[in-house]
Amino acid sequence: MSKSQYRLRSAERSDVENILFMIKQLAEYEKEPHSVEITERDLERDGFETQPPLFHVVLAEVLEQNGWKCVGFALWFYVYSTWQGKALHLEDLFVLPQYRNRGIGKALLRRCAQVALSEKCKRYQWNVLTWNTPSIDFYEAVGAKAMKEWMLMRMDKYSMERFIESSTDSVSKQ
Amino acid sequence: MSKSQYRLRSAERSDVENILFMIKQLAEYEKEPHSVEITERDLERDGFETQPPLFHVVLAEVLEQNGWKCVGFALWFYVYSTWQGKALHLEDLFVLPQYRNRGIGKALLRRCAQVALSEKCKRYQWNVLTWNTPSIDFYEAVGAKAMKEWMLMRMDKYSMERFIESSTDSVSKQ
Repeated sequence: MSKSQYRLRSAERSDVENILFMIKQLAEYEKEPHSVEITERDLERDGFETQPPLFHVVLAEVLEQNGWKCVGFALWFYVYSTWQGKALHLEDLFVLPQYRNRGIGKALLRRCAQVALSEKCKRYQWNVLTWNTPSIDFYEAVGAKAMKEWMLMRMDKYSMERFIESSTDSVSKQ
Repeated sequence: MSKSQYRLRSAERSDVENILFMIKQLAEYEKEPHSVEITERDLERDGFETQPPLFHVVLAEVLEQNGWKCVGFALWFYVYSTWQGKALHLEDLFVLPQYRNRGIGKALLRRCAQVALSEKCKRYQWNVLTWNTPSIDFYEAVGAKAMKEWMLMRMDKYSMERFIESSTDSVSKQ
């Protein structure tokens, strides 16, 4: 089998098992294997039943003896820039370790750029772990810019509840 | 007039002029006054005609002699965490300088947390400029966590086009 025998295709509802498997593999790579709370049912509902879907997935498949095998994925959704309008946010990009270094990740990254352009997005963005220098180098080499002046802030459910409860004044004063 | 006379309300289509004015004020604060390419028409279409809208806005208004005056806003949309599901991303939070220090920003921030909880989001997030330490301190004080291990990467339209054109191999090999 040639190393170049791979293809990209849009995911379907029946792919959620593979998608969740790869989400978990990616979480392991990110050193947070126990943070994945999402279920196959959540992915079915949010990605394939909700209209419009809350996310989109492209799968990378490799031809093996018993057929096409899912070896990587890109998951994205649309966000909004108040300076430029609709933008594409790539939430996950992952290729199984044993299938790397044959251009599959780059092809997934490029496919999303094509979607962004076809949807008239003026921005294409994603987050990267600051310790993941090989990925940062790769992203910069293909033309992405590290937005070092921005930092992500986050509240989890507990923090949101505490924040709301801690209020001593009414939310809306009239 | 009491300093506490303000109210929050969901924005309507007729508010786009005020929203764009505040987006431009915020861009000025962020030292990028010329980066705002969006128009009132874009905001009307993307926020009030598209279903579901690409973003949502809550306005803060203060009662003045000639009626309620728009003095701040929060603009958000939904994103997706592959670990936890639907999440709320606060894109812009802004209060006109002369109306600060009376709890309006905090009320807007809290209102979005309430929306996130009512929409069953397990995450509430936003980006902050790394040099904006007063804001970072304020966000941490109300329970948000700085995600210092993540960095935003971005491609603009030109970079996407270059990336796609530079490809020497076909996007999908079969």
